[in-house]
Amino acid sequence: MFASDFEKGATMNETGGEAPANVSTTAGRIFKIIRDHGPLNGTDIVRRTGLAKSTVSAYLERLLAVGLLRDEIPSAGKRRRLKVAESAGYVVGVAMGQSHLNVALCDLEAEIIDSVGESVDLVKDPPEKILGLVIAFARELEKRAGLGPSALFGVGIGLPSPVDYSEGFPVSPPVMPGWDRFPVASFLAREFTCPVFVDNDVNVMALAERDKGAAAGVADRKGSFILVKTGTGIGAGLVIDGEIYRGAKGAAGDIGHIGIDGDSTPCRCGNTGCLEAVAGGRALAALAEAAARSGRSAFLAGELASGAAMSPAIIARGAASGDEECLRLLISSGACVGEVLAKLVNFFNPTLIVVSGGLTRLGDRFIASIRESIYRRSTPLATADLIVKESALLEKGGTMGAAILVLDEVFSHRNVSKLMRRFDDQSG
Amino acid sequence: MFASDFEKGATMNETGGEAPANVSTTAGRIFKIIRDHGPLNGTDIVRRTGLAKSTVSAYLERLLAVGLLRDEIPSAGKRRRLKVAESAGYVVGVAMGQSHLNVALCDLEAEIIDSVGESVDLVKDPPEKILGLVIAFARELEKRAGLGPSALFGVGIGLPSPVDYSEGFPVSPPVMPGWDRFPVASFLAREFTCPVFVDNDVNVMALAERDKGAAAGVADRKGSFILVKTGTGIGAGLVIDGEIYRGAKGAAGDIGHIGIDGDSTPCRCGNTGCLEAVAGGRALAALAEAAARSGRSAFLAGELASGAAMSPAIIARGAASGDEECLRLLISSGACVGEVLAKLVNFFNPTLIVVSGGLTRLGDRFIASIRESIYRRSTPLATADLIVKESALLEKGGTMGAAILVLDEVFSHRNVSKLMRRFDDQSG
Repeated sequence: MFASDFEKGATMNETGGEAPANVSTTAGRIFKIIRDHGPLNGTDIVRRTGLAKSTVSAYLERLLAVGLLRDEIPSAGKRRRLKVAESAGYVVGVAMGQSHLNVALCDLEAEIIDSVGESVDLVKDPPEKILGLVIAFARELEKRAGLGPSALFGVGIGLPSPVDYSEGFPVSPPVMPGWDRFPVASFLAREFTCPVFVDNDVNVMALAERDKGAAAGVADRKGSFILVKTGTGIGAGLVIDGEIYRGAKGAAGDIGHIGIDGDSTPCRCGNTGCLEAVAGGRALAALAEAAARSGRSAFLAGELASGAAMSPAIIARGAASGDEECLRLLISSGACVGEVLAKLVNFFNPTLIVVSGGLTRLGDRFIASIRESIYRRSTPLATADLIVKESALLEKGGTMGAAILVLDEVFSHRNVSKLMRRFDDQSG
Repeated sequence: MFASDFEKGATMNETGGEAPANVSTTAGRIFKIIRDHGPLNGTDIVRRTGLAKSTVSAYLERLLAVGLLRDEIPSAGKRRRLKVAESAGYVVGVAMGQSHLNVALCDLEAEIIDSVGESVDLVKDPPEKILGLVIAFARELEKRAGLGPSALFGVGIGLPSPVDYSEGFPVSPPVMPGWDRFPVASFLAREFTCPVFVDNDVNVMALAERDKGAAAGVADRKGSFILVKTGTGIGAGLVIDGEIYRGAKGAAGDIGHIGIDGDSTPCRCGNTGCLEAVAGGRALAALAEAAARSGRSAFLAGELASGAAMSPAIIARGAASGDEECLRLLISSGACVGEVLAKLVNFFNPTLIVVSGGLTRLGDRFIASIRESIYRRSTPLATADLIVKESALLEKGGTMGAAILVLDEVFSHRNVSKLMRRFDDQSG
């Protein structure tokens, strides 16, 4: 099987991929169950689907024949189990931050095979330049892995901006105006001959946590969770019943610009008192510099004198070494994030909040401070079963999540079922 | 057809009614399309489902034969169109407020045929007494309509409390502790011989707006909206892709206890600064009384002198008559509600917010004040297509919504398809 067996015309994101009612999507459903829960044997699938044993066997044979599944290396005495043929093709996952670009080559289980990264400046550099880098890095990764021209099933990108998912471009990015409505998906599709999918970076990270990280068990039982990324920017991704919820304009989860009542700190977005402006990485760095200059923190003063630029990482080191001012800064940032989350917990009643991003490295005290604020201000019922925990993936989440975005689309029920029908037509 | 053809064993709420994969739910899907969009003819249904014309015809004949559909009275020259046989059965919808109980008899299109209401005190009166009233009212309505013993398809109830939907009881109601975990569904199921479904009152009102009210068009295109009820309590119902989103513990939408930062007004829930305590009907009445006594409002002073209890309705009258203090009170309440909603709009990016409940009667200025707060503090993208409007149903929404709750469950894809199979077995 080649990636080109899948539809290549789809250069823009395809949404709402429900099959027409008269088309069977059974092949796609079986493949998805194996993607999510494999390796499995035929009996497992009969149990999970309620399909007849003969039907399941027939579909499994076809999925094996077409190359999407493979036999798990069987241990002695065990029954034959099938899993995704993870090396039957590849996807490229791209994580674009305001200051860093990461490009990864992943297999069909979204495991990272190889990756390249570089510092960039999304605010200053034009989209053409950055996307040129993405193309160059992807080509380098293909070359290093010795891939042929049809090996890529798709390219996925997470951008630090609201995204029009069906059109594949950023919309009204508050801090990188040069990217507004730049056609990222179609620009890249001119170079790659596979589908390109573009989404918000935090949505993409939430997909990675759902399948490979802190929320893996929750999404399995159709739970809903919030991923919060606290870095230079602060944002959230919502997963509802296992799917990303994007909202009317792709703006859902944009919590960085929620106002902290009574705060008038100016934000880069033009408003005042935004969570990001009060508790984000840039705000913390500025507060750290002030603390260094005023002498409130000997640790920070020493760092500044040695020429270091103030950053959340330095504050974390200071807090770990017992510097009280650093500890105060990280607790106060966590408390602000927690105050906003407390409101959202009352409204949305999630089972899980996963905290990710650069500020998470501030350590346990940061998460503890978030948790404390939530528990103090949410209703007892809304927090009864709530878990607040750290991301299990951190920086890997961006590229893995972008790979999962591609795999979810390319291996939708409809696409897998279409591929099977084409295979049936060809083989007689 | 009798209501008893549907499963009577289901006295508690059934959730997650997805059919096993090997069972066709085509009959249920066709019936749902006619429920949502009827009257329709066969061609309309072929277009909407992609099913073969012969398949659609066969199912329509069976749905007609079993009595769930009927011919629309045809106008001359028009093709035969089918609609729900709205008088093939009945449901009872119950709206329970903190101070008022409404019970309505509805047809299978959730239209109210007859209703009874009475003042109650949910905080003081024990559940057995109030639910006894519900039973008596339902029996009275059945009698007035001359219904037989098998006419009821189900009973639906909206309660002013978080609800464990699958168990059918209220959970941790902040203001009516005597109801905590009282088995409302099973208590009523002992009396009625049809299924009983219990949900939060605002969720139920959201269903009514979805099908019959301000959100009818939005839900149709799979949109998501928030219904906000502003009365003595303040709460919200979330509809996502046309379905009620209840959250992990049934607490989703509990916005009345979201904290207003920096406000220390004590709330009945034990916390301070809750939206409800600052901007709810009780808070407004207290502020109105203070304004009357201090002489800041001649209008309110006059009302108080004439023995009237201060209420949102009186404030609305005062504002309409030009009393500045009354106008100030309603604008300030709307601004508080809007400040909380602004945060939720950034997080959830809905297409529509519908405002309902007693305070809505404060008039256009109240909604305008909510809208203004949202637009001032949400991101431009999140409000780009946002509509904020008044409920189209107001008090009727509670009972109609409770009826729709029952109809959605009783006429789920699975149940309708099961009924059709039983019918086929009997007739074939």
